[in-house]
Amino acid sequence: MALTQARTMPGVLELLPLDQIAFQRMLDVIRRNYERFGFLPVETPVIEYSDVLLTKTGGETERQVYFVQSTGTLNALGKWVEEHERSEATDKVPELALRFDLTVPLARYVAEHEHDLSFPFRRYQMQRVYRGERAQRGRFREFYQCDIDVIGKDSLSIRYDAEVPAVIYSVFRELNIGAFTIQLNNRKLMRGYFESLGVTDPEQQTLVLREVDKLDKRGADYVRETLTGAAFGMSAEAAQKVLDFVQVRSTSLQDAFAKLDALGPGPEVMEQGRSELKEVLGLIRDFGVPETHYALNLSIARGLDYYTGTVYETTLNDHPQIGSICSGGRYENLAGQYTKSHLPGVGISIGLTRLYWQLRDAGLISTAHSTVDVLVTQMDAAQLPAYLAVASELRAAGIATEVVLEGGKLGKQFKYADRAGIRFVLVLGEDELAKGVVTVKDLRREDQFEVARTELVKTLRVELEQAAVMG
Amino acid sequence: MALTQARTMPGVLELLPLDQIAFQRMLDVIRRNYERFGFLPVETPVIEYSDVLLTKTGGETERQVYFVQSTGTLNALGKWVEEHERSEATDKVPELALRFDLTVPLARYVAEHEHDLSFPFRRYQMQRVYRGERAQRGRFREFYQCDIDVIGKDSLSIRYDAEVPAVIYSVFRELNIGAFTIQLNNRKLMRGYFESLGVTDPEQQTLVLREVDKLDKRGADYVRETLTGAAFGMSAEAAQKVLDFVQVRSTSLQDAFAKLDALGPGPEVMEQGRSELKEVLGLIRDFGVPETHYALNLSIARGLDYYTGTVYETTLNDHPQIGSICSGGRYENLAGQYTKSHLPGVGISIGLTRLYWQLRDAGLISTAHSTVDVLVTQMDAAQLPAYLAVASELRAAGIATEVVLEGGKLGKQFKYADRAGIRFVLVLGEDELAKGVVTVKDLRREDQFEVARTELVKTLRVELEQAAVMG
Repeated sequence: MALTQARTMPGVLELLPLDQIAFQRMLDVIRRNYERFGFLPVETPVIEYSDVLLTKTGGETERQVYFVQSTGTLNALGKWVEEHERSEATDKVPELALRFDLTVPLARYVAEHEHDLSFPFRRYQMQRVYRGERAQRGRFREFYQCDIDVIGKDSLSIRYDAEVPAVIYSVFRELNIGAFTIQLNNRKLMRGYFESLGVTDPEQQTLVLREVDKLDKRGADYVRETLTGAAFGMSAEAAQKVLDFVQVRSTSLQDAFAKLDALGPGPEVMEQGRSELKEVLGLIRDFGVPETHYALNLSIARGLDYYTGTVYETTLNDHPQIGSICSGGRYENLAGQYTKSHLPGVGISIGLTRLYWQLRDAGLISTAHSTVDVLVTQMDAAQLPAYLAVASELRAAGIATEVVLEGGKLGKQFKYADRAGIRFVLVLGEDELAKGVVTVKDLRREDQFEVARTELVKTLRVELEQAAVMG
Repeated sequence: MALTQARTMPGVLELLPLDQIAFQRMLDVIRRNYERFGFLPVETPVIEYSDVLLTKTGGETERQVYFVQSTGTLNALGKWVEEHERSEATDKVPELALRFDLTVPLARYVAEHEHDLSFPFRRYQMQRVYRGERAQRGRFREFYQCDIDVIGKDSLSIRYDAEVPAVIYSVFRELNIGAFTIQLNNRKLMRGYFESLGVTDPEQQTLVLREVDKLDKRGADYVRETLTGAAFGMSAEAAQKVLDFVQVRSTSLQDAFAKLDALGPGPEVMEQGRSELKEVLGLIRDFGVPETHYALNLSIARGLDYYTGTVYETTLNDHPQIGSICSGGRYENLAGQYTKSHLPGVGISIGLTRLYWQLRDAGLISTAHSTVDVLVTQMDAAQLPAYLAVASELRAAGIATEVVLEGGKLGKQFKYADRAGIRFVLVLGEDELAKGVVTVKDLRREDQFEVARTELVKTLRVELEQAAVMG
């Protein structure tokens, strides 16, 4: 038989086991923190009805969607029939598609199960999403999103906007990937400020924001010229005010308040945004987030169609090139396409696959040690029951243990442990069994010691707990 | 805007949060046990190249495969173009498909990463798979598989066949879903025995097995008639021997050995199977599995094309109608379609979605308590900083805590906790704050007590640990 080349499509991140362990630990940290803040787990199907997924005519349809077709009964390779052709005949959009984010499925979930949920509904969801991106370094077609959202029925207190950064802080502190800053802005403040400069049309405000987004790449002069040019027709003074506005950053809570006040009075929507921001910034401190870890950043806009109030981005202080590692904000109505209920909410998303890839690329995370703590070697096949008994004891104590069942030279067994990243290797030879001891080789410390059989579990537990604390 | 009905396609299991918690706990138990036995995590992409997924012309093509097409750039709803039409023009099979199991992706993974893996390669994988089944009660189009496999390079000791039941035992003991029996057979024994009865053609052996599979449904007389009929032409004596063979069950290890011996001598392949089975059965005991939890069952065949030696099924003693809850076996060569390396292996799979659904249907598992341990109520918005401080302290101690940020009547807050399945509700009113105490309401015990603020964490921890032990 001719061989088929074993390969995966571009844009997916498939990891070797020790990297998968590192990735899994990040998922576990995120989940643990989400749960500690009282968020409930939800999982939704990867496949959704296309009409459910693509109701909105806004940003979603620009995303590249993967459509799905069942084979009906696939009798033989090459016969891709039935449902496909039927859908061709009726209309061009296939019935099923893969989700491209977790927000649309959340909206669908909340609308579908509305009467079985308690509000405010606090859910976390950590699953993969799919986008048919063109193949390009750092672009993923399949990636994890780790989301939290709080959904209110009819209304949702602005205070929840302050809880979200507390969760972000808790997650990234424990992920231990370096200093970070949670940056906040408020859409109402932004819109109101632009309104005060004469840009009253929401679409025009969006276009201004898009220009302002080019600040980093094109520089202030370019943006100023565009804003004062024919397309926008702003005065030089107004253009400068826009540039000044989006460059506001705070260095402390007091500084944030001062800078918000320094913007001067504005229309009602701006005052509302300012008051929301102040309340949120103040409450974040009450949530225990140090002032070093959050700041005002009036350049943050996010996708304009969706968010209506508070918006967040989080960046690594020492690696700004990575961009935002966790973003989100407040929205007015989650599921207007599915239900008449008014469901405001606030939430954030961590794109973990991209984050992991970038951190690894920047040398900020390395391959993990094995989840296997101990390898029990096999000196003598006749003693297998003794080896298995030791392993059972270790496993019962929660120590992940592998037993060499194949046999072979001891040197080869050590090499296997070393290559597999297993730290402790146990040797139970004739001598050891007679003396009631075990020889423990610590491959990480390149150390070796003998321990009484009865003390083995305790000793290894202490070692492993120390290692866990040391990280 | 006209509303779109929020709905999911048939054949997916979407759970409410408290059910999702119960499901997640099962996943956690399985993962923990897989890791304790030294299996390493692997995740593979949901989407694979069709030619990679569908190389085998055997069972796989009969499965109902979901094919995937990217939109290219989807400019507007209704324009499903580019890649789709291109694929139509060249051939009928789309380039991408969703995996229908975790075994083919494992084969692809091992072949692709062969030189980066240590052998024996022990991996676990717990992800969802997709099959375009016709909609039917209890049939899932999307479901979790939780697999372990040990893959050898060139060879793999038969001893690993005994380790797999030890893992199964460990998993199902901790899942705590009632008494279960791991049932074993060996394909070589089976084939050899049929050979001794004159059925030497492997295809004919397969057909005999298929008839024998109808024993439960159609009864012994029907099967006997078929075997002695024109299609098989077996003697009455041979047919009876087949029927006797597949009805062999053991009640203890000694009984298993005796029943294997009682089959009488046979051709070489049968002797090999018998010797393997004996070694495996004996070793399972050394792995610490009680004799009450595993048995010989010579009717077990599994899909004939794939398995070559030991085969397993696991059943719940009190719920035989559920069928096998965990199946697998030994195979000769994992990835012959991708690599010239000879990669024998042994593994099992738990179809968790179906299992969960069946257990729930049979009333064997119920909705979980919330992952949220504590709700901090809001008596007075001005005291929010105090509430948040308590919550921070609890969270730092690993206690999942939600704070009521919205406010509202205390009675309504209690109702929310009750409905959401949160056990402890804290009240910090003026009195409590002045006295330095907290009122704790235990909604599960319908009890209420006052505890010093400084003792709160300790007290709740003890309560929660007790609850965890009690299950």
